[in-house]
Amino acid sequence: MKLTNKQWRLAARPVGDIKASDFALTEVDVPTLGDKEFLIRNIYLSLDPTHRLWTREEDSYMPSVKINDVMRGFTLGVIEKSNNENYPVGSIVTGVVGWEEYSIANDSSLVSVVNMDKRLPLTARFGLMEHIGLTAYFGILDILKAKHGETLVVSGAAGAVGSIAVQIGKIMGCRVIAIAGSEEKCQWLKNDLGADETINYRTADVSTALTEICPEGVDMFFDNVGGKMLEAVLNHINMNARIAMCGAISTYGDDEKPYSPSNIYNLLHKRAKIEGFIVLDYAQDQRWWKRAEDEMTQWYLQGRMNYRLDIIDGFENAPEALMKLFVGSNKGKLLIKISDEV
Amino acid sequence: MKLTNKQWRLAARPVGDIKASDFALTEVDVPTLGDKEFLIRNIYLSLDPTHRLWTREEDSYMPSVKINDVMRGFTLGVIEKSNNENYPVGSIVTGVVGWEEYSIANDSSLVSVVNMDKRLPLTARFGLMEHIGLTAYFGILDILKAKHGETLVVSGAAGAVGSIAVQIGKIMGCRVIAIAGSEEKCQWLKNDLGADETINYRTADVSTALTEICPEGVDMFFDNVGGKMLEAVLNHINMNARIAMCGAISTYGDDEKPYSPSNIYNLLHKRAKIEGFIVLDYAQDQRWWKRAEDEMTQWYLQGRMNYRLDIIDGFENAPEALMKLFVGSNKGKLLIKISDEV
Repeated sequence: MKLTNKQWRLAARPVGDIKASDFALTEVDVPTLGDKEFLIRNIYLSLDPTHRLWTREEDSYMPSVKINDVMRGFTLGVIEKSNNENYPVGSIVTGVVGWEEYSIANDSSLVSVVNMDKRLPLTARFGLMEHIGLTAYFGILDILKAKHGETLVVSGAAGAVGSIAVQIGKIMGCRVIAIAGSEEKCQWLKNDLGADETINYRTADVSTALTEICPEGVDMFFDNVGGKMLEAVLNHINMNARIAMCGAISTYGDDEKPYSPSNIYNLLHKRAKIEGFIVLDYAQDQRWWKRAEDEMTQWYLQGRMNYRLDIIDGFENAPEALMKLFVGSNKGKLLIKISDEV
Repeated sequence: MKLTNKQWRLAARPVGDIKASDFALTEVDVPTLGDKEFLIRNIYLSLDPTHRLWTREEDSYMPSVKINDVMRGFTLGVIEKSNNENYPVGSIVTGVVGWEEYSIANDSSLVSVVNMDKRLPLTARFGLMEHIGLTAYFGILDILKAKHGETLVVSGAAGAVGSIAVQIGKIMGCRVIAIAGSEEKCQWLKNDLGADETINYRTADVSTALTEICPEGVDMFFDNVGGKMLEAVLNHINMNARIAMCGAISTYGDDEKPYSPSNIYNLLHKRAKIEGFIVLDYAQDQRWWKRAEDEMTQWYLQGRMNYRLDIIDGFENAPEALMKLFVGSNKGKLLIKISDEV
């Protein structure tokens, strides 16, 4: 039986906001597997802000996706054929592959077999673990080194990564201020995730709000947004403050010079730091990575970790769905369901 | 015998570049010493870029100097009268006091007795130690954590702090690229201080020059300049690069929004950090401080540490002299000689 493979390719470099027409759907036959190769049937495709970065002309922390290449993406899938004993048929895997129904990978691909506590649903890979939950974990524990009683601000707090960061901040004993873009999101952050205070940045000036909410200043900032959000929080940093630069979604559509805060010199006055990080680096240290997975699993099983999923059925809908991230209309971790769970 | 005390007071908030007319010379009687107080006859007044920060309306890492207050300054002096057994007459002291001939201080002042190897000249306090040399020391060893073989860029490299940073970088085994504002300074940095490469930022584009000089990128940046200089170097940072934000002299005269680099998001792609620091914080840990003094003394006595002084005679000349820093016309650490060494 001949398998065909639908793939979304990058058709054009987005100008400003990303559009569905920047992608093109194509279909090819799945080729025969080579030595050491294995075939993944993709089940879920993770849609993430970082996709906008990869579509830019210049390289970021990964090479730019070339025009007409299959769009890069994180997927969760099942191995259906294999010439590689390390990746047996039936294994659940996650990895950085493409926006496609089937992926062919080998030992050098960024793909790993999932070995998850059976009490967790498969979707928890992208709600709690991998590049989502573990980004929050390493940001809070390694980059910010959160301490009990410190004040933590999280931007993009209702997003997939932000919402986990808020909860880890609470588990670490911090006072957490969550910034999001709607009343509904703020209510969720406060009522369900335990944020101490919230700021709706669409109806309030963030810097003014922080003056009221944080009269004693901000010790840590987990920033997913960059630009003016970063500038607003920099106004309030305390001595020895730490800022984890996790993302800068507000600037990804700026094709010329991205907006840069004019007050970065506050870092000098406050002996503070901004540090960028990428979760993929931690995957190279399995001791860190396994510790994070174990701890996240425990927190989840103890009922201390909530996440929401926004699952959209149908591979064809990927480009339209991606746009939700940039207007903030997704309600939870955005996933495309490509095929059925095993 | 009644002593009089000349003092320079802040007469006006500088607009843009600092002007001599922003200061006013006054004269008062030296009052009688109170309990636990001691009287310092100031010998040298250190003139530093940070003075421009202190004259701004807003507080920086120290409170803003108020209009009509005596201008704040670092001095080296000798105790001539004392009601405090910890500060006996004849002791040489350094401290943060004022632009004045005499200072009265007590236990809570930022003044400490100098206990320096007798083989070092008194002026080495400001050429090699205190807020100059030890700023370079802690920046390179603690903030940047320089490692053998790494590439270090220093801006303001011919300045008092920068020139020491260049030399410590070489002692640590780094490849050092020194950025300065004249051919004469570049020659000095290369021939006398051992910089591997120099860039004259007045005749070359810094980013273009770095492309040629550092094809393998920049691991560390010791930045005294900020603004466009920081932006140029951010273009070239390597994975896990570190930037020590020591100063931002290019922005101190910006009364509105200081120029901010548009590429700080490179920190994200490169998992890099920018960290501000102030040498005064290290003075609170005498173990660090003494280690630094000991090591700097050894390097000096081994002939591995050069410094230049630009000493201007006469207290009256302080405001005029200060301006040299902001046009870069000083040749070495700028000092005002107020009175004779003991």
